[in-house]
Amino acid sequence: MSAPEKHRRFRVLETEPYNGEAPVDLLLERSETPTELFYVRNHAPVPEVDAGAFRLEVGGLVRRPLSLSLEELHRELPVVEVPATLQCAGNRRDELVRVRPVPGEAPWGAGVVSHARWRGVPLAAVLEAAEVTEGAAQVAFAGLDQVEKGGERIPFGGSIPLARALAGDGAPPVLLAWEMNGEPLPPEHGYPLRVVVPGYIGARSVKWLRSVRVQDAPSDNYYQARSYKLFPPHVGPEDADWSRGLMLGELSLTSVIGAPRDGEEVPRGIVAVRGYAMAGGERTVERVEVSADGGQSWTVAAHEPAPPGVWTFWRAELDLPAGDQEIVCRAWDSAANTQPERVEPLWNFKGYMNNAWHRVRVQSG
Amino acid sequence: MSAPEKHRRFRVLETEPYNGEAPVDLLLERSETPTELFYVRNHAPVPEVDAGAFRLEVGGLVRRPLSLSLEELHRELPVVEVPATLQCAGNRRDELVRVRPVPGEAPWGAGVVSHARWRGVPLAAVLEAAEVTEGAAQVAFAGLDQVEKGGERIPFGGSIPLARALAGDGAPPVLLAWEMNGEPLPPEHGYPLRVVVPGYIGARSVKWLRSVRVQDAPSDNYYQARSYKLFPPHVGPEDADWSRGLMLGELSLTSVIGAPRDGEEVPRGIVAVRGYAMAGGERTVERVEVSADGGQSWTVAAHEPAPPGVWTFWRAELDLPAGDQEIVCRAWDSAANTQPERVEPLWNFKGYMNNAWHRVRVQSG
Repeated sequence: MSAPEKHRRFRVLETEPYNGEAPVDLLLERSETPTELFYVRNHAPVPEVDAGAFRLEVGGLVRRPLSLSLEELHRELPVVEVPATLQCAGNRRDELVRVRPVPGEAPWGAGVVSHARWRGVPLAAVLEAAEVTEGAAQVAFAGLDQVEKGGERIPFGGSIPLARALAGDGAPPVLLAWEMNGEPLPPEHGYPLRVVVPGYIGARSVKWLRSVRVQDAPSDNYYQARSYKLFPPHVGPEDADWSRGLMLGELSLTSVIGAPRDGEEVPRGIVAVRGYAMAGGERTVERVEVSADGGQSWTVAAHEPAPPGVWTFWRAELDLPAGDQEIVCRAWDSAANTQPERVEPLWNFKGYMNNAWHRVRVQSG
Repeated sequence: MSAPEKHRRFRVLETEPYNGEAPVDLLLERSETPTELFYVRNHAPVPEVDAGAFRLEVGGLVRRPLSLSLEELHRELPVVEVPATLQCAGNRRDELVRVRPVPGEAPWGAGVVSHARWRGVPLAAVLEAAEVTEGAAQVAFAGLDQVEKGGERIPFGGSIPLARALAGDGAPPVLLAWEMNGEPLPPEHGYPLRVVVPGYIGARSVKWLRSVRVQDAPSDNYYQARSYKLFPPHVGPEDADWSRGLMLGELSLTSVIGAPRDGEEVPRGIVAVRGYAMAGGERTVERVEVSADGGQSWTVAAHEPAPPGVWTFWRAELDLPAGDQEIVCRAWDSAANTQPERVEPLWNFKGYMNNAWHRVRVQSG
């Protein structure tokens, strides 16, 4: 497959598999991320899928296993469009790397987050048609991609709680989607069908979806059982007990300053500070604050209320004295969670879920 | 009414209305809090209720308004028992007070949290019987107590999202309860009927319940519209715009060291550190860590997994050098949230939701 067509400022971290993110200042130009800026996190080459021959297999703890063509999915189930922001668990890893190296993991910046309108069918409707049986607890997904792991080829996969898959009022639906922003999914985003789990780490939104399996336990796929787990700072790859890592699922709360940029020179006086914020699960961002004195005093940013699973853009004005200044931001979510202050105590050897106060240094003159 | 019978070490902050909490070391003796240790947060004198004449009124956006005696509640609806930990939004206010005074609010310690088995009927079953209609978004509760506010007498009240009231799989049910720990509710805990909202601030678990009202907006009761809102550190009572405060609902994540106690002398060497941790909403506590070097290094505590809405007790051992030592703890929840490091940036003039790393100083010798 040829490389995806991306913006000239798109930062390609790796070409095979293809991985990249946009600079945050470009992401802030539109709430709906254009595909040329949408982050890409792949673990294997993009599979070439014959959409005509494609069938989605639905099995496990169900009374009626299903095998559905794309046309049957479109025709036999309710089609909905849902706005959802995806965010990688590795977003803002670069700040962790500056504390201590995170070997073997891509040094993602703060642009591994993007937003789209997704069109597809609710996973809940698929599960209803398949008739979930007693003992069901998790819904596992597997992709058509083939990742090389220890001499074997495995699909990328993962699972979410059944309760999340079925969640009704209040929670944005989990989708099996074939369109983003009104266009068919591009190959690198999962053509012809992918999962979209609003409020969860991007890894659970499995691309090139081939199977949905209802089961009594989380997926034993490498990317659920080994990867995407959070360990304390003192644990390394050599002594990690994988059964004890925190299995990631819902996103934690984060906020990021996109403008001014780190290292930028700004005129002395009133400076407009802009950025994004994102809450996890079914929580919403309730407040964003910025500080130019290390958190001694805070200015509340203006932000548009956004539903769960959707980022919000915010804007504040700070009156900066001359000299080298550090601007920080933090958000609060609807569960009154706020962000941790320092990156250091969040370090973990996989480099996940850094949501410390975001900091940029500017030269005010 | 006579004062409740409490443990001799129960700390009474106020007698009229009655308010008090137990020392944390006593709370840690049993996962199910004995009533003599269970915290009490009242805003008015305890009402004397004639259980025989009592009727619960269910109205608002429903097709079939209900008026139910206690006997009808028991007989006509499914009775369930649910373990749930209640926690006041003012828990750990004393640490905020040490940063800056919080005038007019009781200086609660870290014992405004307690656990019980609650028996009653699911609110969802009551709402199903009443047949909620279109446009419903919130479920509002009002009590039989009479609080003096600005020359008027108002009931204590508040509301929760309808989606939370109806939540099925995965979320512990919201209850209308008449028993705690196998005994009828004592007067100070809401006899004859109270709400229990697992995972939410205690204020939403309205006591002496007299009415349930389904509506399109949050309760306009003083305790939802004015009190129990979170403001930034620079806002005071004189300039608070009440329409802009963060309306509290789900609890944030917290953890507390109960032993050793602050100021305690401990033998040099291995010290057992014990405490509780509690996640909010439908999240669970996934890890608790302690540090004796200000968060440079962490020891993972042992803890029993607990369902959403239920606290967990944890225990770790630290090898302390001689001298004056500070021990801190922090928890992580299932959404990979962790606690903020310092109390100072959390200060707010109502003194709510302090969930900074908990700290005790001990003399190791």
